[in-house]
Amino acid sequence: MKEVEYIVKGEYLVTMGPSGVIERGALAVDGGRIIEVGKEEDLKRTYRGRTEIGGPGRAVLPSFVNTHTHAPMVYFRGLADDLPLNEWLQKHIWPQEARWLGPEFIRDATELACLEMLKAGITLYNDMYFFEDASAEVLNRVGMRGVLGAGILDFPTSEAKTTDEYFSKAEGFIQRWHRDTLVVPSVAPHAPYTCSPETYKRAVELAERYDLPVHTHLSETEWEVEEVMKRYGKRPVEHLDSHGVLNQRVVAAHCVWVSEEEIEILAKRGVKVSHCIESNLKLASGIAPVPEMLRAGVRVTFGTDSAASNNDLDILSEMSTAAKVHKAISRDPTVLDAETVLRMATLWGAEALGLADRIGSLETGKEADLIVIDLRTPHLSPIYNIYSHIVYAARGSDIEAVMVRGRLLINEGEPLTIDEEEVLQKARRWAEKIKDAS
Amino acid sequence: MKEVEYIVKGEYLVTMGPSGVIERGALAVDGGRIIEVGKEEDLKRTYRGRTEIGGPGRAVLPSFVNTHTHAPMVYFRGLADDLPLNEWLQKHIWPQEARWLGPEFIRDATELACLEMLKAGITLYNDMYFFEDASAEVLNRVGMRGVLGAGILDFPTSEAKTTDEYFSKAEGFIQRWHRDTLVVPSVAPHAPYTCSPETYKRAVELAERYDLPVHTHLSETEWEVEEVMKRYGKRPVEHLDSHGVLNQRVVAAHCVWVSEEEIEILAKRGVKVSHCIESNLKLASGIAPVPEMLRAGVRVTFGTDSAASNNDLDILSEMSTAAKVHKAISRDPTVLDAETVLRMATLWGAEALGLADRIGSLETGKEADLIVIDLRTPHLSPIYNIYSHIVYAARGSDIEAVMVRGRLLINEGEPLTIDEEEVLQKARRWAEKIKDAS
Repeated sequence: MKEVEYIVKGEYLVTMGPSGVIERGALAVDGGRIIEVGKEEDLKRTYRGRTEIGGPGRAVLPSFVNTHTHAPMVYFRGLADDLPLNEWLQKHIWPQEARWLGPEFIRDATELACLEMLKAGITLYNDMYFFEDASAEVLNRVGMRGVLGAGILDFPTSEAKTTDEYFSKAEGFIQRWHRDTLVVPSVAPHAPYTCSPETYKRAVELAERYDLPVHTHLSETEWEVEEVMKRYGKRPVEHLDSHGVLNQRVVAAHCVWVSEEEIEILAKRGVKVSHCIESNLKLASGIAPVPEMLRAGVRVTFGTDSAASNNDLDILSEMSTAAKVHKAISRDPTVLDAETVLRMATLWGAEALGLADRIGSLETGKEADLIVIDLRTPHLSPIYNIYSHIVYAARGSDIEAVMVRGRLLINEGEPLTIDEEEVLQKARRWAEKIKDAS
Repeated sequence: MKEVEYIVKGEYLVTMGPSGVIERGALAVDGGRIIEVGKEEDLKRTYRGRTEIGGPGRAVLPSFVNTHTHAPMVYFRGLADDLPLNEWLQKHIWPQEARWLGPEFIRDATELACLEMLKAGITLYNDMYFFEDASAEVLNRVGMRGVLGAGILDFPTSEAKTTDEYFSKAEGFIQRWHRDTLVVPSVAPHAPYTCSPETYKRAVELAERYDLPVHTHLSETEWEVEEVMKRYGKRPVEHLDSHGVLNQRVVAAHCVWVSEEEIEILAKRGVKVSHCIESNLKLASGIAPVPEMLRAGVRVTFGTDSAASNNDLDILSEMSTAAKVHKAISRDPTVLDAETVLRMATLWGAEALGLADRIGSLETGKEADLIVIDLRTPHLSPIYNIYSHIVYAARGSDIEAVMVRGRLLINEGEPLTIDEEEVLQKARRWAEKIKDAS
């Protein structure tokens, strides 16, 4: 008998890898990695776990990947809703950001965002915001993963005054963090209407130099398409492609307004799309042609966008909404079937962020990033198909345990590396200041 | 000091009545009714509660109303998903129904549905299914409310063989239950493509005789519109209206494919619409013109439809989905604002089922049907606007307490009148039989 740190058991072990779903399956986890995957009865002949988690009535699966968010904006959740986009941004979000952003805000808000995401089974998120050193420190303290990039724009913000300053800060951040275990730095040119083609080129060169992801917004609104057409005579995807900046390291958030030709470009260049359906719906931006992108071979993944627009950081609910909405829009109830949707939220998310060789599925040799879902609840009873239950009926509150690199971060629904009470109190205090300033 | 059974306290007392939101508010509850509503500090000068529930960090609001479901189908949750409607019905749902339906199935499945709904804050649901005596008995045992009607069709099912038999069974059910406190019988002609105009007329007459709601499906799919056009030369709403069967006691589920003229008819006749957005999306039926109906003055409420199509019985998630989807479809982020959406799910739901004089808002003299939401969680922090939090961010698991007619049915998230363990075990046993027969 070989002793390992954990045996993780599931009535349904949903590997998202070649083994598919293993009923009454188990994983042996040691040294941060999955040592073996199999039937529980077989595995237990070889391994003894110092700790066992999961068991009957549980599903074990790779944890969720959130491929587009602005995590610290969680402090603006519900600050201003049901408003036109411009009024929302100009009268509410931007003035508050101008007033509060700084390392202290980012650190406290990121802690809340991490706590919310972990409890909802997200262990890796792709962030674009400011003062990302503060976020990186939180991730290391908490034990969660993030791909972090400070937004680069051709105009001044709290982060920097000139394009050069953005780049020099970005490279400094990269140098400090690109060898980290949990944090991957990214380069994050904001959008085609806020960054010149030169800025995009410089961003992609920087990313290539360090072998990092590029994170950008792309074709979120019809206004953006018109604006880019006006300036450059091309639609946004065509425009960026004409400057040679689209490739397999680019994660493009939204891609709502993309033509057939642009979908072909995204497919050919291997661009990864972060589909943020709840944000796109709530801000009335539109509905991305996801079934068409999937058919063309584009890797589509899920992003929550910020909690200020959405209003939560919950991939389970993005999956459910997307799977349903695209059926209605395409008039075809067979599109975005539950298994595909779960793959988009797990393995493809990891792939989009360049980490599919390490995480995203439960396979021998991969790092142990996983969740345990408790199925023994009224809204998950009875059970016929595990994919369908996860995508259409499970909620964040069903997540019993969360593990990153073999370290248990949530157990019995409670965080082990974050002081929840303290995080909620800090949020209250910040909200009072923000309200007073509104 | 007057002693009352309960003082219910909320940092936000969301009355959905003329008092709006009372911060640090409280209710005195006694003999099943709300005795007084006010600021906690004022109320406590007059009343002492034998039990106090709620408190800081909680929202107290009227419980949710589910205006269209087939509750016992919860046993078919996830049995067959991502399929075309006809294949789903003909190959999966109908054969299973033909095999299993009977009082025992209905009783056990209704218990699970009630448990799921109560835990998600729903205390009143509008049901159309079969063998409703079994459901009525469950409701009385559990302490929850339902408007129950056996489906009436012009062809045989497990319930009855002829139209006459349906009506004689319906009237028998009405006579047994129409004086009940928790159960309201309804008359439930299934749909314009399964019931003749004569059947509808007979149904409405029966409902008028006993002053009860009429519950029907209406204009759910484009196929239905074509079919009714073919048979009667009119669109479904026009067709029913031409036979004089639309009035203020009719609750019409779906109304997806309604023309401008038909919206006018619905408004003029005072028909209540049950909007089942998640079911309509998932079955690719289409998206009802809800902003247009609201503008025309139609009372639109929320239904979950059955858990076999949706896949849960959760009005919180219907609210969130509807509020977002209609913004995108109408290209206007101001439609279905959070306060309107919450009114649709509470007061208007009660009104649709003829119960707004008794429940649906927190007002002195009304019966105490209410929920307490725990806001002290990461995904509900920080807080600026309570309506927005309930509609866009709250989940079923945030519901701490549920009360019907002044009786506490859920406390600290746990059911007090249902044995959850037993209900889940029964669901497992039934599912094994159903799987074996698939």
